[in-house]
Amino acid sequence: MDVWTVGVDLGGTKVAMGLVDPRQQIVARERIATHPERGAQDLVARMAACIARLSRQVPQGERLGAVGVCSPGPVDSQQGLLIDPPNLHGLQHTPLRAMLSEALGLPVNLEHDAKAAAWGEHLYGAGRKDSSMVYIVVGTGVGGAVIIDGAIYRGLANTAGEIGHVTLDPDGRLCGCGNRGCVETFLSGPFIARRYHLALHGVWPDGEPPVDAAVVSQRAAVGETLARDVLADAGRALGRAVATMGMVLDVELHVIGGSVAKAGDLLFASAREVLAHHCYGSVAERLRIVGNALGEDGPILGCAAQARALLGG
Amino acid sequence: MDVWTVGVDLGGTKVAMGLVDPRQQIVARERIATHPERGAQDLVARMAACIARLSRQVPQGERLGAVGVCSPGPVDSQQGLLIDPPNLHGLQHTPLRAMLSEALGLPVNLEHDAKAAAWGEHLYGAGRKDSSMVYIVVGTGVGGAVIIDGAIYRGLANTAGEIGHVTLDPDGRLCGCGNRGCVETFLSGPFIARRYHLALHGVWPDGEPPVDAAVVSQRAAVGETLARDVLADAGRALGRAVATMGMVLDVELHVIGGSVAKAGDLLFASAREVLAHHCYGSVAERLRIVGNALGEDGPILGCAAQARALLGG
Repeated sequence: MDVWTVGVDLGGTKVAMGLVDPRQQIVARERIATHPERGAQDLVARMAACIARLSRQVPQGERLGAVGVCSPGPVDSQQGLLIDPPNLHGLQHTPLRAMLSEALGLPVNLEHDAKAAAWGEHLYGAGRKDSSMVYIVVGTGVGGAVIIDGAIYRGLANTAGEIGHVTLDPDGRLCGCGNRGCVETFLSGPFIARRYHLALHGVWPDGEPPVDAAVVSQRAAVGETLARDVLADAGRALGRAVATMGMVLDVELHVIGGSVAKAGDLLFASAREVLAHHCYGSVAERLRIVGNALGEDGPILGCAAQARALLGG
Repeated sequence: MDVWTVGVDLGGTKVAMGLVDPRQQIVARERIATHPERGAQDLVARMAACIARLSRQVPQGERLGAVGVCSPGPVDSQQGLLIDPPNLHGLQHTPLRAMLSEALGLPVNLEHDAKAAAWGEHLYGAGRKDSSMVYIVVGTGVGGAVIIDGAIYRGLANTAGEIGHVTLDPDGRLCGCGNRGCVETFLSGPFIARRYHLALHGVWPDGEPPVDAAVVSQRAAVGETLARDVLADAGRALGRAVATMGMVLDVELHVIGGSVAKAGDLLFASAREVLAHHCYGSVAERLRIVGNALGEDGPILGCAAQARALLGG
């Protein structure tokens, strides 16, 4: 089927879009700032303009068939609604699928961003040889998604895989979700930055510390001991998260994505080291922790594949 | 189909057997001591004798069609093997299904005990109105099983649902599995007994303490504060376990079985109280923690149903 699609990764600060050809290659891109505070109408109009520009690159005689969008959760995929995404204030309860579909005159699919990225990695990336996998996104927050037997496992209310808000330490740091000691408070970018600040200066920073997680990674990569220790600690939390998923789901492959995952083995090595301390030895032996293969293209390709599926492709 | 079956719950100390009629009622029972140290041949011969006795109660013109057995894990259900069950020393690597099938001249199914109990509760007990559920067995150890969309979810190596050995506190008490601070070290009968001993006497007991978990439950039931506090602490660990399953699997119903679960709300009330501290509020609101409905009949009925399924019933 010679159908072209567009995949759209709607994030808190930017919207990344890609035109995807019938061989599932991204052949053109657009990127805009999200500005959620301007509201849904404004955002949809700007997204539709970008998609229209992309569609002009579809060759004569072929057509843009559908659009797949993903956004931070919670998302109601069935109804096509953004519910109350914490990083998209101004877009609560937006019927994004219907609005964008009307603006474009095309079928639109709406997916949770971690699930879209997982789906992309499952089809084309680090998970393409496994029928089941866990995907963990480590960025501003920590999210997750689960693929079982070649399908996204959603659970009863589409929230399966949310490992970021499983408690590791009930007396731990206060998380954005209101609880203490969630996986996110050990592993997300902002918390890695805070923990590095604490290690450097002996005090927990009030807001965003001056050195962010990307810089902590850079310093670790050039051998700074303190930065390496902070990332290794975060990696041990990742190991506990993976061991938990491994025991509950009995899935072997754990693919780690998101901006913080770019630290690679600075994070993954200590995660792998502690696995056997947090699950059966026989399970630990089977667990694999790998970085994602598609980077920021993962969600775009996952969304594009879901858009194609809307057309029966 | 007027097929009769036998369900067999093979435990570390006893084997409980039930003859199950075509309407899935247990109409006769046998019980023997396990004596795993005498080896597999001895056990299979004694089990077969009991099953033969039960089969004599099948009415003229009808027949005993198949037998379902469950045992502590790890179990290879596909090959019908006991692998290395820690409470069945002497029976390692026993091809139990083939041995019993040959002794009886009947088809035999072998299942992991937590999964058999979960299956019984799903079909006939506390889970019969839900298509998905988590089952947690709290006894000498802590095990688990997962039902998703009306089927047992096994994972890649049949170990899904093993919440008992997820770490709650990496600096916690040494668990039988060799790790520290597993769910089991807060929640199992022997650990409840040890924690009660510690609370009473100020020292962690070397071996089995004189007062066991059943007595702790009795004392809590009549209002002893110390016993109530110890059970409430165990309940909080159960709450963390359920919250973890809820976040990873997005399954709402959590059915709790096993000897320790007989404590009921002395255990469950504090579990329910802490749920919202360990997962999204929206998930916590949906999570339900209930006791099992079938007690020790659950695994027998689950095994019998699987035996019937062997015959296409």
